[in-house]
Amino acid sequence: MIIVMDYQAPDEQIEVIEKKLVSMGVQTNVSRGVQRTIIGAVGDVSRIDTKLIDALPGVEQIIRIMKPYKIVSRESHGADTVIDISGVKLGGSLVQVIGGPCSVETQEQMDLAASAVADAGCKLMRGGAFKPRTSPYSFQGVGIEGLAMFHKAASKHNLPIVTELMDVRMLDTFMENDVDVIQIGTRNMQNFDLLKEVGQIHKPVILKRGMSATISEWLMSAEYIAAGGNHNIIFCERGIRSFETAYRNVLDVTAIPVLKKETHLPVIVDPSHAGGKAWMVPALSKAAVAAGADGLLIETHPNPPEAWCDADQALNPNELKDLMVQLRGIANVIGREL
Amino acid sequence: MIIVMDYQAPDEQIEVIEKKLVSMGVQTNVSRGVQRTIIGAVGDVSRIDTKLIDALPGVEQIIRIMKPYKIVSRESHGADTVIDISGVKLGGSLVQVIGGPCSVETQEQMDLAASAVADAGCKLMRGGAFKPRTSPYSFQGVGIEGLAMFHKAASKHNLPIVTELMDVRMLDTFMENDVDVIQIGTRNMQNFDLLKEVGQIHKPVILKRGMSATISEWLMSAEYIAAGGNHNIIFCERGIRSFETAYRNVLDVTAIPVLKKETHLPVIVDPSHAGGKAWMVPALSKAAVAAGADGLLIETHPNPPEAWCDADQALNPNELKDLMVQLRGIANVIGREL
Amino acid sequence: MIIVMDYQAPDEQIEVIEKKLVSMGVQTNVSRGVQRTIIGAVGDVSRIDTKLIDALPGVEQIIRIMKPYKIVSRESHGADTVIDISGVKLGGSLVQVIGGPCSVETQEQMDLAASAVADAGCKLMRGGAFKPRTSPYSFQGVGIEGLAMFHKAASKHNLPIVTELMDVRMLDTFMENDVDVIQIGTRNMQNFDLLKEVGQIHKPVILKRGMSATISEWLMSAEYIAAGGNHNIIFCERGIRSFETAYRNVLDVTAIPVLKKETHLPVIVDPSHAGGKAWMVPALSKAAVAAGADGLLIETHPNPPEAWCDADQALNPNELKDLMVQLRGIANVIGREL
Amino acid sequence: MIIVMDYQAPDEQIEVIEKKLVSMGVQTNVSRGVQRTIIGAVGDVSRIDTKLIDALPGVEQIIRIMKPYKIVSRESHGADTVIDISGVKLGGSLVQVIGGPCSVETQEQMDLAASAVADAGCKLMRGGAFKPRTSPYSFQGVGIEGLAMFHKAASKHNLPIVTELMDVRMLDTFMENDVDVIQIGTRNMQNFDLLKEVGQIHKPVILKRGMSATISEWLMSAEYIAAGGNHNIIFCERGIRSFETAYRNVLDVTAIPVLKKETHLPVIVDPSHAGGKAWMVPALSKAAVAAGADGLLIETHPNPPEAWCDADQALNPNELKDLMVQLRGIANVIGREL
Repeated sequence: MIIVMDYQAPDEQIEVIEKKLVSMGVQTNVSRGVQRTIIGAVGDVSRIDTKLIDALPGVEQIIRIMKPYKIVSRESHGADTVIDISGVKLGGSLVQVIGGPCSVETQEQMDLAASAVADAGCKLMRGGAFKPRTSPYSFQGVGIEGLAMFHKAASKHNLPIVTELMDVRMLDTFMENDVDVIQIGTRNMQNFDLLKEVGQIHKPVILKRGMSATISEWLMSAEYIAAGGNHNIIFCERGIRSFETAYRNVLDVTAIPVLKKETHLPVIVDPSHAGGKAWMVPALSKAAVAAGADGLLIETHPNPPEAWCDADQALNPNELKDLMVQLRGIANVIGREL
Repeated sequence: MIIVMDYQAPDEQIEVIEKKLVSMGVQTNVSRGVQRTIIGAVGDVSRIDTKLIDALPGVEQIIRIMKPYKIVSRESHGADTVIDISGVKLGGSLVQVIGGPCSVETQEQMDLAASAVADAGCKLMRGGAFKPRTSPYSFQGVGIEGLAMFHKAASKHNLPIVTELMDVRMLDTFMENDVDVIQIGTRNMQNFDLLKEVGQIHKPVILKRGMSATISEWLMSAEYIAAGGNHNIIFCERGIRSFETAYRNVLDVTAIPVLKKETHLPVIVDPSHAGGKAWMVPALSKAAVAAGADGLLIETHPNPPEAWCDADQALNPNELKDLMVQLRGIANVIGREL
Repeated sequence: MIIVMDYQAPDEQIEVIEKKLVSMGVQTNVSRGVQRTIIGAVGDVSRIDTKLIDALPGVEQIIRIMKPYKIVSRESHGADTVIDISGVKLGGSLVQVIGGPCSVETQEQMDLAASAVADAGCKLMRGGAFKPRTSPYSFQGVGIEGLAMFHKAASKHNLPIVTELMDVRMLDTFMENDVDVIQIGTRNMQNFDLLKEVGQIHKPVILKRGMSATISEWLMSAEYIAAGGNHNIIFCERGIRSFETAYRNVLDVTAIPVLKKETHLPVIVDPSHAGGKAWMVPALSKAAVAAGADGLLIETHPNPPEAWCDADQALNPNELKDLMVQLRGIANVIGREL
Repeated sequence: MIIVMDYQAPDEQIEVIEKKLVSMGVQTNVSRGVQRTIIGAVGDVSRIDTKLIDALPGVEQIIRIMKPYKIVSRESHGADTVIDISGVKLGGSLVQVIGGPCSVETQEQMDLAASAVADAGCKLMRGGAFKPRTSPYSFQGVGIEGLAMFHKAASKHNLPIVTELMDVRMLDTFMENDVDVIQIGTRNMQNFDLLKEVGQIHKPVILKRGMSATISEWLMSAEYIAAGGNHNIIFCERGIRSFETAYRNVLDVTAIPVLKKETHLPVIVDPSHAGGKAWMVPALSKAAVAAGADGLLIETHPNPPEAWCDADQALNPNELKDLMVQLRGIANVIGREL
């Protein structure tokens, strides 16, 4: 940690800061330049709240050298982590595509969806029983019974299931219904109480990036889960907010190599929520795999125009199948399998 | 609602859309231009999910004419709403300043803070017992006992208290501890289960804007609360995320007149979290009042450099007092009182 | 064009607008709903400045149905345009990689760079003689003599050259020095006088996207060039500004399919300026080709740590060669050649 | 300047960097921590291009301690600069409002506008003869003859004139027409050749902020002008681009106190282009003055609905007059005059 003092900060201010740092258990190292004095803090500074120093008179700027995340960082664990999802591996040399509808609607729809997903060669299935909707007047998901329908449909094809948890009070129900992967949605990336709870269990967690979360904040949210003991975390990039209005969110493809450098955990991409339109999904999916994503979360519906939710962004079964062929080709070019 | 068809969309596609709209209970009105056909949907379209139409072949774009929010809209209620907070009015011609520390630390700190707040002329007090922190290793708030300390300190000066609710399971505790105003923080603006619960009670709610929420999404989050029956909602602008790194968030001062036009509910501003530095707070506070804010949420601490949280953004008691004088002057110029 | 009137706008206001529209040569079509009246304007509305209508009393919102761009739009020209760059084709089924250094430094450096570029299999070369630098104290490019060095080095390998034009007064010099492609940089995307001038010549123009330009504004800048008569325009996505600080700009990979839908002109990507670090370039390049880009603009330097400019983002000759192999593989998977 | 090395960077890499720095004329200072080595560079580092260091193996991050701007910085010149505009002072304790239309249309319109501006108590007038328009098909300004009309109208009321220069080839014409203040628009903030030219003259320059320019980039653009010898620079905040669509740009009111801290030069605000609608202008103007702006640039038109350009954002003469009264009140409250 480096503390840059104001231009012409007097010695007394420098001494106050040195004392404060020493009282926090770290050593200091003062370097007086022609225009500015710089104080280096050496030792375990990771738990020091920089704002406590920043509030002291004479401080211009504080720079953290060490990354604030630990368990999830690549430094703490050099090798890529492979996560076991009820027998299906995510991470490593395989690329996994998780297909399925935005929301669970009926048993028939889920049966058709599961067939299509398995048929296209996907090994995991997604679907929402509880839906976070911008409007209180929109369809909010079929609720608990949706979990049973989902489970029934997916188990015929041995597809582990991925579904979103929004309310901390529903966690037990998710456990009882054998949800294989708990998804934490964009709007809950910094719902810290929810993160703490999923940190207490051992189910794999897909942690979606907040609408305008920096990669560093996202890693810190994963750290909340990891700090509770659950290290089975999968990052999911789903587009970030920008000024552009030609599509819903800008898919941050650069986040893939950046995360791969910063963390040992797998990184997947949701091209459906990024672009927001089905016709954009193939291009974005191919870009994500080419950039090194460990998987994709693709919305598919047996009959998109009849979907109850996000009807405009789901692929139909044939589109998914065709896309899988190209994705497999790209994966092979970069030395991976799908 | 207006549906713009693709350039050269065939008649069959137009008919499919008309049928779908009619099946949803609205009337249609087709206008064929030289290059594009446009379908108008007339009737109660407010509950129609536009994505269900957007998924149909041949649709280029859908435009909603009606606002998706109802109860909170200015159209539904022309006059400004004044909210009664345990006897203190917020909204109307008065401007209210809510002072207090980022977090409850000790009884002594809260007693000093309450004196300073009352002394400066503020009628309401803020303070956090539960804190949403980016890092799991940062101070998370003193918890439940903090509510009692806060209540004790504030009641000596008849200051109603404002504090943040993060976890839906804590709502009963907040009610038992006589919290006067429940604050929903930035990171929970779209925690829909939490919004639904505070919609069931009748306490005033301060709804902070999400880090990158549009004004329309923010109004829809308020609509979640209002739809449950609780119309005592106060909007709080606290800065939005941008590319600029010279300060924490960009205070969206334009949101004040825009909200005043769109909703009858009061709008306050948090200059402390917007700028992120105490030295920016006076300028931002004055700007907010000049632009028409109904109140401010200002962080103050008896001794900022010793604060346990956000130490760099709190005003000290004298700074608060001096600022109040200028704010009163500005309020008077624009025909309001403080 | 659709004009949405304010809630309860009186008839006189509606009539004023109708008259104004008629005076502008278009027909109107009024539809009175329960809550709002909507006026449709039919005819050639493309040259109507919507703000002139928006200023009239009672107007809530104006919606343009027609795209404001014409010559560059896909509607005006259905087939993909292939641009001939001194014999090298850009657009169509081929993917072109344009390699070369950030700036021209010396004849030796350019000779080595040209060899490396040709050796890796690239058919076009880039290099800057005039550099737009954020600081007036940074290296500003070697200037006019750089064009001659560049030409000499590239012609040995029959590589057409791409270089940036910043100052309209330099256009003649560029023409005299046989520059094959004129690049308009990010900071000049809306330098309309410069766009008008390059619209008067017939050299191919690479038009980089402005730092925070919407796709629609970018298309309009291309329309400025096209309106002058020069239709040899190549769009170049180079990352847009966001809140993220882990890299320089967010590469907008979604812009590729969106542009392919909106325009018939080719679209290339500059992964070097997007990420800002050499280690990000391979992932971004692969993503761009997988998403359908017609080409790439990649910074390469014979010896990156000795580069005079953007040293941290250039690939070395071996890195470029290795990347070309993977890019070729991806191009083939999606049915293209490189 | 501080160079942070990668986790476990070997000694040889550290030595290479030390040598490079020494060859650039600065001294180094190596501090080896448990996990990372940090190299401090002491001396005149202001002209070192950090990217040249960043490209060397083993470098994780480079942090500049010193500000890259010099002449315009508050450190170089402690007192506020007051700029003399043909006898009218801008900066210091006065607040100046510059009124006038978006564009020069006719002599009559300019005469009426000048009367209204003078009548409201403004001491300076704005108006555009050359207009930067997003579309090539929109009105581009009346051109050179507009300068004469403007001059004639304004001189009757002794109002110095402010007008935008877009094309470097027009500078002589501006000088011949006695333009008092040259405005550099948003789209040209980083048109470095234009900045260099206005750096060679001694006319005051209003430098508008780029659409998504950071404050630091903006200061560097001013430094381009100052480095040429022209120190008569006025910053103009005009709203920055964000994800919000309820208004045109988000007025960055926080930029006012930040600039006041970083530079000695005056800062004005353009509320008209920020919000984009006339009804937002009063709130934004009051906010800007309350936050400490040294002036405002307000669009006014004798008859807004008939304006040829930006008709929806101009105030009419009475609105301007009324606004001036409130602005004067706010200026007085904060110890300034208007």
